[in-house]
Amino acid sequence: MSSYSIMPAPQDKTHLPIRQQMEALIRRKQAEITKGLESLDTVKFHADSWTRGNDGGGGTSMVIANGSTFEKGGVNVSVVYGNLTPTAVLAMKDDHKNLKLPKDPKTGLPVPDGVKFFACGLSMVIHPKNPHAPTTHLNYRYFETWNPDGTPQSWWFGGGADLTPFYLYEEDAKHFHELHKKALDKHDKTLYPKYKKWCDEYFYIAHRKETRGIGGIFFDDFDDRDPQEILKICEDCFDAFLPSYLPIIEKRKDMPYTEEEKQWQLIRRGRYVEFNLIYDRGTQFGLRTPGSRVESILMSLPEHASWLYNHHPAPGSREAKLLEVTTNPREWA
Amino acid sequence: MSSYSIMPAPQDKTHLPIRQQMEALIRRKQAEITKGLESLDTVKFHADSWTRGNDGGGGTSMVIANGSTFEKGGVNVSVVYGNLTPTAVLAMKDDHKNLKLPKDPKTGLPVPDGVKFFACGLSMVIHPKNPHAPTTHLNYRYFETWNPDGTPQSWWFGGGADLTPFYLYEEDAKHFHELHKKALDKHDKTLYPKYKKWCDEYFYIAHRKETRGIGGIFFDDFDDRDPQEILKICEDCFDAFLPSYLPIIEKRKDMPYTEEEKQWQLIRRGRYVEFNLIYDRGTQFGLRTPGSRVESILMSLPEHASWLYNHHPAPGSREAKLLEVTTNPREWA
Repeated sequence: MSSYSIMPAPQDKTHLPIRQQMEALIRRKQAEITKGLESLDTVKFHADSWTRGNDGGGGTSMVIANGSTFEKGGVNVSVVYGNLTPTAVLAMKDDHKNLKLPKDPKTGLPVPDGVKFFACGLSMVIHPKNPHAPTTHLNYRYFETWNPDGTPQSWWFGGGADLTPFYLYEEDAKHFHELHKKALDKHDKTLYPKYKKWCDEYFYIAHRKETRGIGGIFFDDFDDRDPQEILKICEDCFDAFLPSYLPIIEKRKDMPYTEEEKQWQLIRRGRYVEFNLIYDRGTQFGLRTPGSRVESILMSLPEHASWLYNHHPAPGSREAKLLEVTTNPREWA
Repeated sequence: MSSYSIMPAPQDKTHLPIRQQMEALIRRKQAEITKGLESLDTVKFHADSWTRGNDGGGGTSMVIANGSTFEKGGVNVSVVYGNLTPTAVLAMKDDHKNLKLPKDPKTGLPVPDGVKFFACGLSMVIHPKNPHAPTTHLNYRYFETWNPDGTPQSWWFGGGADLTPFYLYEEDAKHFHELHKKALDKHDKTLYPKYKKWCDEYFYIAHRKETRGIGGIFFDDFDDRDPQEILKICEDCFDAFLPSYLPIIEKRKDMPYTEEEKQWQLIRRGRYVEFNLIYDRGTQFGLRTPGSRVESILMSLPEHASWLYNHHPAPGSREAKLLEVTTNPREWA
């Protein structure tokens, strides 16, 4: 038994604790997704397990590199627990309404220990080689906190999946969105429109005035229904991923491409790097957290990225057509 | 006369206003530096002038690309003025002790207009092609603010120059540092040790626990002596740059190199991108300032950068030798 199992969990007695169910789910999905992706490549993922040293927990990064289909990719599972410092709690509070910094009842001051936490999640970024094949990102995670006295404080789910093409194939965008919509519609038809919009807003490169890609779904701080149901929603979204992505890669991975198309892919990958390093909350938070594993956080970066001064595609070009949908997000499903 | 010239300046009556002298200096230095760099390449810089639209000011970016010596580089002059919003003032206040958000004497609340400002500076990043030739960065800038009633509020100089080699040539590091030390020693022997340390601290990639390169000099919020003297210090530092950099490039630009050495250069450029996008205050501030020119800010990024998962050079290799001095900054002069 790991040390976090002494802490109570916020769900009914008829199931295993949610955190154990979520951990089992992400480990199962890591195996399924890597196997699915490997089926379209000549190389395999290799596993790299790590622990957090003095802090609690660790993870397994599954990494693919230099494949015939995938230039670079990682499917990372992490299960970590320990203390969130008051500074970390303050940084996260705005995005998580039930997370609070407990105060000492005598002094009224924030307790120096902050809160205890448990977090587990799977995060994945896949960068294909062919500029006609889109990059994709997926992440589903679960978070719990406890007060210093051991009473449960807050919990939430977050996650989503999105697509970053370099050339726009409308049928690919529709396919990816439709399958994720279907997964959410099974539970509640109000979810997809909300999470689609949230995704466009979250993956926004403000200084470029454009989205990172053509979106998908994104949600955070999801805690307003039975956690057992939210877990099922995450599972259904997970299940939507391979059928939404593999057929696209199968169609695009061997398309002929030019030097110029490869160059455009590298420039767009530069924008990917800009988003991840400047705006992505998970990356920012991770890199500023002592004891976090930098290599797993920055696994999301492409093998190659390029920046040209003041580059703008020619009006009417296929490159410009992509920018039309990243500057004005469209409805795809 | 431009509109900012109606505002009073904080110096004596026997000289032109400091801001006009600084503007003249940076324009002269832009011409000199680009000419000096061009002397070692087969291609020329080209000029790209821009204005801030509805806001005041503009600049001239001098850009070089695809040269035989320089892969990508920019020498950018900007002269901008207008209003700093209260949010911007609050963001800058911590680094600039005399910058204050004025309050309305009647209500005691911060005035919504914030403060008026004038800023001018030259900033430069040069990425040579050859992995044995170091990247360099230089920036000298001057800043003034006024209260809404037109009274001067604060002014300061900032800047520095630093070197980012991919392979360590101790003689290059010494040469670069020695010339900058000499420029500062002429004025005050306490400056170089202070600014050398500040440079190591500023260009620190915290999540990697290493500095960006082998440093140089860096200072900010410099306002504690006669501005006329600080201007002269900036000029002497400017003058130190070409003699400190050109001989290094001349020696390194045609050295033979392997694919592996080029690959190492790209990985180190990835770190350069990490620093600039995550930590550099100027970049962060610029990208978040409405009306700023993104292309000029991101001109600092290399044409190509690369990220490999969990890459570590072999112990004892020349690559590992570079990391020794980026993880434990050394005294070079």
